[in-house]
Amino acid sequence: MMDYNKYKRGYFMPPVVTYDWVKKDYIDKAPIWCSVDLRDGNQALVKPMNLQEKLDMFRMLVKIGFKEIEVAFPAASDTEFQFLRTIIEEKMIPEDVTIQVLTQSREHIIRRTFQALEGVPQAIVHLYNSTSVAQRQQVFQKSKEEIKQLAVDGAVLVKELAASTPGNFRFQYSPESFPGTEVDYALEVCNSVLDVWQPDSAHKAIINIPTTVEIAMPHVFASQIEYIHKNLAYRDGVILSVHPHNDRGSGVADAEYAVLAGADRVEGTLFGNGERTGNVDIITLAMNLYSHGVNPELDFSNMMEIIEGYERLTNMKVSERHPYAGQLVFTAFSGSHQDAIAKGMQWREKHNSPIWDVPYLPIDPKDVGRNYETDVIRVNSQSGKGGVGYMLQQNYGVQLPAGMKEEMGYLAKGASDQGEKELTAEEIYNLFKAEYVDNTQKFDLLDFLFNKQEGSIVATLEITRNGKCDKINALGNGHLDSVSNAFKAYLGLNYDLSFYEEHSLGRESSAQAIAYVGLTSNGKVYWGAGIHPDIIQASVHAMLVALNRMA
Amino acid sequence: MMDYNKYKRGYFMPPVVTYDWVKKDYIDKAPIWCSVDLRDGNQALVKPMNLQEKLDMFRMLVKIGFKEIEVAFPAASDTEFQFLRTIIEEKMIPEDVTIQVLTQSREHIIRRTFQALEGVPQAIVHLYNSTSVAQRQQVFQKSKEEIKQLAVDGAVLVKELAASTPGNFRFQYSPESFPGTEVDYALEVCNSVLDVWQPDSAHKAIINIPTTVEIAMPHVFASQIEYIHKNLAYRDGVILSVHPHNDRGSGVADAEYAVLAGADRVEGTLFGNGERTGNVDIITLAMNLYSHGVNPELDFSNMMEIIEGYERLTNMKVSERHPYAGQLVFTAFSGSHQDAIAKGMQWREKHNSPIWDVPYLPIDPKDVGRNYETDVIRVNSQSGKGGVGYMLQQNYGVQLPAGMKEEMGYLAKGASDQGEKELTAEEIYNLFKAEYVDNTQKFDLLDFLFNKQEGSIVATLEITRNGKCDKINALGNGHLDSVSNAFKAYLGLNYDLSFYEEHSLGRESSAQAIAYVGLTSNGKVYWGAGIHPDIIQASVHAMLVALNRMA
Repeated sequence: MMDYNKYKRGYFMPPVVTYDWVKKDYIDKAPIWCSVDLRDGNQALVKPMNLQEKLDMFRMLVKIGFKEIEVAFPAASDTEFQFLRTIIEEKMIPEDVTIQVLTQSREHIIRRTFQALEGVPQAIVHLYNSTSVAQRQQVFQKSKEEIKQLAVDGAVLVKELAASTPGNFRFQYSPESFPGTEVDYALEVCNSVLDVWQPDSAHKAIINIPTTVEIAMPHVFASQIEYIHKNLAYRDGVILSVHPHNDRGSGVADAEYAVLAGADRVEGTLFGNGERTGNVDIITLAMNLYSHGVNPELDFSNMMEIIEGYERLTNMKVSERHPYAGQLVFTAFSGSHQDAIAKGMQWREKHNSPIWDVPYLPIDPKDVGRNYETDVIRVNSQSGKGGVGYMLQQNYGVQLPAGMKEEMGYLAKGASDQGEKELTAEEIYNLFKAEYVDNTQKFDLLDFLFNKQEGSIVATLEITRNGKCDKINALGNGHLDSVSNAFKAYLGLNYDLSFYEEHSLGRESSAQAIAYVGLTSNGKVYWGAGIHPDIIQASVHAMLVALNRMA
Repeated sequence: MMDYNKYKRGYFMPPVVTYDWVKKDYIDKAPIWCSVDLRDGNQALVKPMNLQEKLDMFRMLVKIGFKEIEVAFPAASDTEFQFLRTIIEEKMIPEDVTIQVLTQSREHIIRRTFQALEGVPQAIVHLYNSTSVAQRQQVFQKSKEEIKQLAVDGAVLVKELAASTPGNFRFQYSPESFPGTEVDYALEVCNSVLDVWQPDSAHKAIINIPTTVEIAMPHVFASQIEYIHKNLAYRDGVILSVHPHNDRGSGVADAEYAVLAGADRVEGTLFGNGERTGNVDIITLAMNLYSHGVNPELDFSNMMEIIEGYERLTNMKVSERHPYAGQLVFTAFSGSHQDAIAKGMQWREKHNSPIWDVPYLPIDPKDVGRNYETDVIRVNSQSGKGGVGYMLQQNYGVQLPAGMKEEMGYLAKGASDQGEKELTAEEIYNLFKAEYVDNTQKFDLLDFLFNKQEGSIVATLEITRNGKCDKINALGNGHLDSVSNAFKAYLGLNYDLSFYEEHSLGRESSAQAIAYVGLTSNGKVYWGAGIHPDIIQASVHAMLVALNRMA
């Protein structure tokens, strides 16, 4: 067993805890988004992106709609530095996009950072140092005052270099390792940095609070952010930003609650790439807003293309269950889910509903480039009539009657269970055809003819059975009734023609019709189907199959 | 752009909203866990598990420590039914484990379920029907009263069959599609079911509230659960359970807040397998408790084995960034993170700290079977001196002096940046050896000899240079000093022997020592190292390399 006692450690609640945020039950406006894919995401890759890959990722982020993009830690490597020089010198930064770069609060790193930034149209210089108890003690061996001074010294140098370097600069400060920092001390450091920068509503600074390592529940972070929001100096001149990680699997809730608690801006990455368990996933955050009817201010309608680009550039894989994006997140294998989705889609079409409320589909898969035919209902041993019926209808236009659909559902799931595999639409259709359309092994019909006789119909049938050919006839009050009577006499069977339905096969060919016949004998229904351009031929064939299956 | 207006839809806040839960900042006791891997997880797989695979998964879940396991929807397929018969007839259910089975509230399905359960030692029969507005309207076309009656009818039949079927049974009810259900109506249906079952503290029933599809933020769910907790009939006789899904990426927060709000039990799966985006991941929930110093009552110390089993049985992949389990979640590539981890680990060893607080490592990787050597610090172009130094120390026992470590850091990250690849420990060691140990291209030492002369040391050196052999000597007040003086005269160089350090290479061989020499010339330090069983030979060689690098 594992020893949990060594984790009886704390985090820091703010001096005053308020819960204004909890009374809001949703977010009504998208925060400012900042992508850190090219920095925090990139630095956590086994193989960080090369120059060309960074340029491709940059273009993709711009296309999605990001207006703030942290593009590099320019002092960290030549590639990082060169990337910055390339996008500045080649004028690749769109007018409405601000790039952001990260620098530790150390003189030579700050100086190198400004070298990389020379001539930038709009940049945010993101200064950080670590403020937690553990890092002060174990890594820096400095007092609170010394660590604060380190931040202030960096802030002064950043301000000086911004004044003397060509380009336009805004400033951002992060008290790194915030979750292990006393909240009031983190606030004090932030306010000291702001005292240097003297921001106002026309020249805003950014204060960015990270959950560098997520060590508490999201509502703890919300209360911390609410305290900072209420006690930050120069509040009108500050954009309060958050930078959640996902160590407890709650990065999304961290970000959302921080926004409810007063944060204006969220830093994160596509699909939550980033150090360890990753940064918060901006796709999930944006799509959560979208699915609540709020404009996310980012465009993920090309989700499949974004997945392809992301996987190629990062060598990471988008999980099959990733919210809004994974291969399986719109798929129902379970019978009851399929049934509800099929009915919900029909209901939606019939009622032309302006609101999306199809069961088990949080959003319309089409919004993110997925399709109903292949992504939503898939059939395996856990599936049922709803899914099987839906697949036959979507792919072949076959609208099975209710009772037949149930039987066909058992047939398909049995085949999947025995074969231990998923069934494609084609395999399901072939099962259907073999069992209900082509099943004339016991006897078949060579030809038939109808005559009228005193208001009745006489059917004359030529039948082959066991290599023998028979000619029979009978009277009825309709075409199908006369055929049925002929068969009854010939086969010596007793049954009721209890069900008959026919429709055109719209999707396959307008010239084809499909007929379904259900014959009841001793309380059991025997189904058959026929497909033919002529509705009489289709119906007679359906009856023939039903009789083959009964006999 | 995507149209978000069709998602301006609601969910249901409870009639009275309280926030008692938000005032608790952590969970102090593990809830009752129920694994639904073999049911909800299994039904969402492209290829559901076969009988043998289900048995393997069942054994793994038992080994982890689950005491309640939902094992099947026995009426769904032959495999499901057979699995149940097998574990009952082969007596494979441990005494302290209760199996659970799911059934819709439909007569033939309930009857089939009890057939599958005959002779079970302990089982929970889990009854459900869908209660949401959308499903009442679109799928069932039934009124609130009719849907409630459907639940009650099922509850009555379950109670009857439990009395007449051999075995011991407990009951569970879920108002499925709860997130789309009016909270007071869901409560009314649950209470009506409880009226049938008449539970008490000696014979508890389970009421299980699912976020069938996660459509609201976790604090909304918490408020709903708090309302149900406070208004449930027979509360002393009820175990309040939750069953979160993850469509908004917040299943973990849903579960944790539900527990704060009064839930006693959580249903979920390993690694969050399950419909669409999956069920809540019980591993993350349990490890979150663990990392807060709370006994999780489940054992994940064999995490690597559990990953292997899970991936084999489900054909799903555990993501590299999956909390507590993914390949990369304990890895730092970034230089500053590596530096802090290396210092934190040293600090921890030195201070013998009872509490784990190493920066950037939320838990000790060893707790889940990971190791420091290969999983924690890995080197690429984003890395720095801390990581490179740590890898040389961990893998080769080489403890570089601070200044040399920084230079070696730049050397390694440059190699990674240019080569566009991660460096292994071996590659880093080879880089180190080539640059600092084997670097004697310009001149080499064939032999040397020391004599004493009036308290001083005379060094005599045989040097090869450009194919030529020279013999030189000089006086010094120590062995190294005399060698240095000989070289100074011979090469015509001016420098200070500013740094010297030596230690045994503990890990490689106790007989080997490594010496580091730093020579300062014109403000720049030139480093060299030597490895030899004899400390004099090691030191002289270190100086030789430093001089080669300077010349």
